[in-house]
Amino acid sequence: MRATSHLRNIVFRPGSASSVLRERVRRPAFLEKLAEPADLAPLFKNDDYIGWSGFTGVGYPKRVPAAIADYVENNNLQSQKRFNLFVGASVGTEVEDRWAQLDMIARRYPHQVGKEIAKGINAGRIEFADKHLSMFPQDLTYGYYSLKKTHGDPKKPLDWAIVEATAITEDGHIVPGASVGATPEILESAEKIIIEVNTHLPNLEGLHDISHSFIPPHRQPYLISHPEDRIGKTSIAIDPDRVVAIVESHMPDNTGANAPESDESRAIAGHLIEFLSSEVQAGRLPPSLLPLQSGIGNVANSIIGGLAAGPFDKVMVWTEVLQDTFIQFFDSGKLDFATATSIKFSPEGFDHFYAHWAEYKDRLMLRSQQVANAPEIIRRLGIIAMNTPLEVDIYAHANSTCALGSRMLNGLGGSADFLRNAKLSIMHTPSSRPTKTDPTGISCIVPFASHVDQTEHDLDVVVTEQGLADLRGLSPRERAPIIIKQCAHPDYRDSLMDYYERSLFECLAAGRGHEPHMLRNAFKFHTNFLEHGTMKVTGWD
Amino acid sequence: MRATSHLRNIVFRPGSASSVLRERVRRPAFLEKLAEPADLAPLFKNDDYIGWSGFTGVGYPKRVPAAIADYVENNNLQSQKRFNLFVGASVGTEVEDRWAQLDMIARRYPHQVGKEIAKGINAGRIEFADKHLSMFPQDLTYGYYSLKKTHGDPKKPLDWAIVEATAITEDGHIVPGASVGATPEILESAEKIIIEVNTHLPNLEGLHDISHSFIPPHRQPYLISHPEDRIGKTSIAIDPDRVVAIVESHMPDNTGANAPESDESRAIAGHLIEFLSSEVQAGRLPPSLLPLQSGIGNVANSIIGGLAAGPFDKVMVWTEVLQDTFIQFFDSGKLDFATATSIKFSPEGFDHFYAHWAEYKDRLMLRSQQVANAPEIIRRLGIIAMNTPLEVDIYAHANSTCALGSRMLNGLGGSADFLRNAKLSIMHTPSSRPTKTDPTGISCIVPFASHVDQTEHDLDVVVTEQGLADLRGLSPRERAPIIIKQCAHPDYRDSLMDYYERSLFECLAAGRGHEPHMLRNAFKFHTNFLEHGTMKVTGWD
Repeated sequence: MRATSHLRNIVFRPGSASSVLRERVRRPAFLEKLAEPADLAPLFKNDDYIGWSGFTGVGYPKRVPAAIADYVENNNLQSQKRFNLFVGASVGTEVEDRWAQLDMIARRYPHQVGKEIAKGINAGRIEFADKHLSMFPQDLTYGYYSLKKTHGDPKKPLDWAIVEATAITEDGHIVPGASVGATPEILESAEKIIIEVNTHLPNLEGLHDISHSFIPPHRQPYLISHPEDRIGKTSIAIDPDRVVAIVESHMPDNTGANAPESDESRAIAGHLIEFLSSEVQAGRLPPSLLPLQSGIGNVANSIIGGLAAGPFDKVMVWTEVLQDTFIQFFDSGKLDFATATSIKFSPEGFDHFYAHWAEYKDRLMLRSQQVANAPEIIRRLGIIAMNTPLEVDIYAHANSTCALGSRMLNGLGGSADFLRNAKLSIMHTPSSRPTKTDPTGISCIVPFASHVDQTEHDLDVVVTEQGLADLRGLSPRERAPIIIKQCAHPDYRDSLMDYYERSLFECLAAGRGHEPHMLRNAFKFHTNFLEHGTMKVTGWD
Repeated sequence: MRATSHLRNIVFRPGSASSVLRERVRRPAFLEKLAEPADLAPLFKNDDYIGWSGFTGVGYPKRVPAAIADYVENNNLQSQKRFNLFVGASVGTEVEDRWAQLDMIARRYPHQVGKEIAKGINAGRIEFADKHLSMFPQDLTYGYYSLKKTHGDPKKPLDWAIVEATAITEDGHIVPGASVGATPEILESAEKIIIEVNTHLPNLEGLHDISHSFIPPHRQPYLISHPEDRIGKTSIAIDPDRVVAIVESHMPDNTGANAPESDESRAIAGHLIEFLSSEVQAGRLPPSLLPLQSGIGNVANSIIGGLAAGPFDKVMVWTEVLQDTFIQFFDSGKLDFATATSIKFSPEGFDHFYAHWAEYKDRLMLRSQQVANAPEIIRRLGIIAMNTPLEVDIYAHANSTCALGSRMLNGLGGSADFLRNAKLSIMHTPSSRPTKTDPTGISCIVPFASHVDQTEHDLDVVVTEQGLADLRGLSPRERAPIIIKQCAHPDYRDSLMDYYERSLFECLAAGRGHEPHMLRNAFKFHTNFLEHGTMKVTGWD
């Protein structure tokens, strides 16, 4: 309890509470704990374990982390105050990247987005590991991230939780902002809690479904068999005695614009909608489909946009994050209900959403990531899962995270939660990407994925702007020619087919032809890129 | 319905029913359908889709498949009658290998064990693909394995189900043998059913818990929160009108001896039991542990044997397969209850088990593989999962299936079902294996797994006879040195550390140091083995 003595020195400023804050904070004792972020910043010690609310840059604490960064900067404490930071997924880059730039992050789990934080990870300054987003909160409560923590309450994996709220109930329970993520488990795991009450946002009470997370052997089934099912409460229960301070905040989520669609993304969406239509035709999907999961990015936007204009009615969505095109999808009348763990609209999207809050609020629900990404529910509902990889290999192993096998680009997120358990597991990607010297210098279809996040056992469909490969029920030897023909960019088709055929010939001859490879050449696309800036190889040795 | 006309020609021999068969078959109309396997064999057409009961060589039909093989052999129909064969997991090699040898298998999903069938797969004669064993039955009922089937009932993925029973109820429902596997879904998926009633085995009624498998959007939670919970019935419901014939069988399951323990396997078990004890000590596991899953093989046997003599009482088991050492574990009084989808005892083990059936029957339950391997339940119960890979890489990606990336050795089985969802995901392997010329010519710790079935995001612990690496909460850069130091064989330790350090140096310099690799050298252990019969490399380029 090394920090307790410091807590006595906090200057509380209950008198400075705005009238809207008094309305939002329905537990008067908390108003007595109103503080200014700058007064809290010195409380944070080197090596502290800190959890934040937030998911995909939404619902994160904005003022206290900024004040801590200011404190570090103003006192030249860069590289001296370094924290272990745990957030359900990513937070606004203005916070995360700034912490990374000031070398304030020793460890960051289980997700990240931002140029500076990725740089810190790839430069060896920040220890980072991906974890399936459904598992991170449970592993946190199990104590798996605090095995080496020797200070503070041994029963609490975190020293601090700093979370955003849009209201606090009479019981002191927290009504989150536009994401839930791992906030319930972060609050449960923290010795001390600071709440940022955001009065810029509307009070989002009723949007959330918060279920308590038990630990084995006391866990119970999630009694959800339909996206609309509610199993929890509208706020997060906490122990009020652990609340150290509250802070008022007026800052919007710093989301930026959604990724713009392109001809490529529209072509991918077109192939996909055609495929889904044929599945309905064949009776393998109901006419209103099954609940959809859709990733982040322009292909996801094109797909949802395409569905808004598409042939399916009464569609349901069970996903991780909602982007702007979901507004379109709602407004089209074709989307009945959507549930996720975060809403990542653009600033304009949020303005529209909050202005029309009454119209949307009964057709939406936010859950914790442990529930939103639960294998249990994904498999039960028979979700149609759609995600973007960096690369897919000819046998359908996919790399979601590490360029050239090593450089952390994007975190794994919930891709594997969904792709492993969905009824239809779909990976969509452009067939190629440009390099500095070659407009198609990177092939997204490769002989061997340079990092494997999703295995061949987990993908049903691969689709690029070139076409769609339906891999269900196929052996590896059947998959490779189809992926190459349907999905690879024409610049790489012959080269990939040559790799496959040579591998097949060699491996059959040697009695190892189940999944043919020439291991000596398996990464030649990648090593060629490292040497020559393009994956276009001259041939196979 | 192309086969229907043939069915009229079956010669039924109700008069030949033994008295024990009359006792076991409680639906008299079925006795009228008693037939001899040789009379049924000609009914099976080239390209037929056939499902069998059976799991890990137990509970499979023995006489009809043998009769079909005889028919093919006697009529020189090798390579002319080729079937699509679907079984929950493996069946007795005397059946599966014989079919493979006669080139009767065009396609085999989702598991295999046997020298001849592996040979057929690796020679390109048999199309095979692994699928997580929890998912295979659902994908079968979804129609994912019959997308190209153009004959027969379009609503039925399979032409035939041939299943073993130890009894048939008044309703015509099937009481399985010592495995459940995918039998319920295979029966549901088949146009025509043949039942082999095995009167050599005792009537195992009461051993099984059979739940109906629904298709989304109509799926419901599995209401199991304890290994002993029952959610189904003791027999498999079928449509009696689809039963074409029944056959009497007296043949035991052809299981063979369990893998013998070794000093190595006992050392691994020792490390593991020590680790589990320390987890109990730290309060991260209850004193009776959490339900255990244990794979097949000598390490698994040593672990269970170790637990039978170990410090934990009232242990529960939730696993895929029970081996002989579980008898010891039961008899030690330390195992309270075990549930699985199959019992794979040795012939002597089965003799003992059936002779003492009354003592064991209330402490055991068999479920379908869709339930036994359900991510939902594995995660809820917080299972401790322990499995053997072929190789693990320095960042904890594991290869469970393909030697040298290509040669199918063992199927994936349920390893990924358990390792992805367990509370503790443990891979155990000897640190090295012998080659023809080098007693430690294969390192089971490699720079880059030549095939990835389990990703770095799925493993908590790697253990060899050398030691145990606890990877929880560690970044890739933290994992590699620990895996190398704790788990690698001394013959490979320096070489692996050199690979890691050179990779680290290169990748940090290039700003891609998250998971350091030299892709040009990543498979050098493997290519060296191909060229020189040992993974001992002379250095890194």
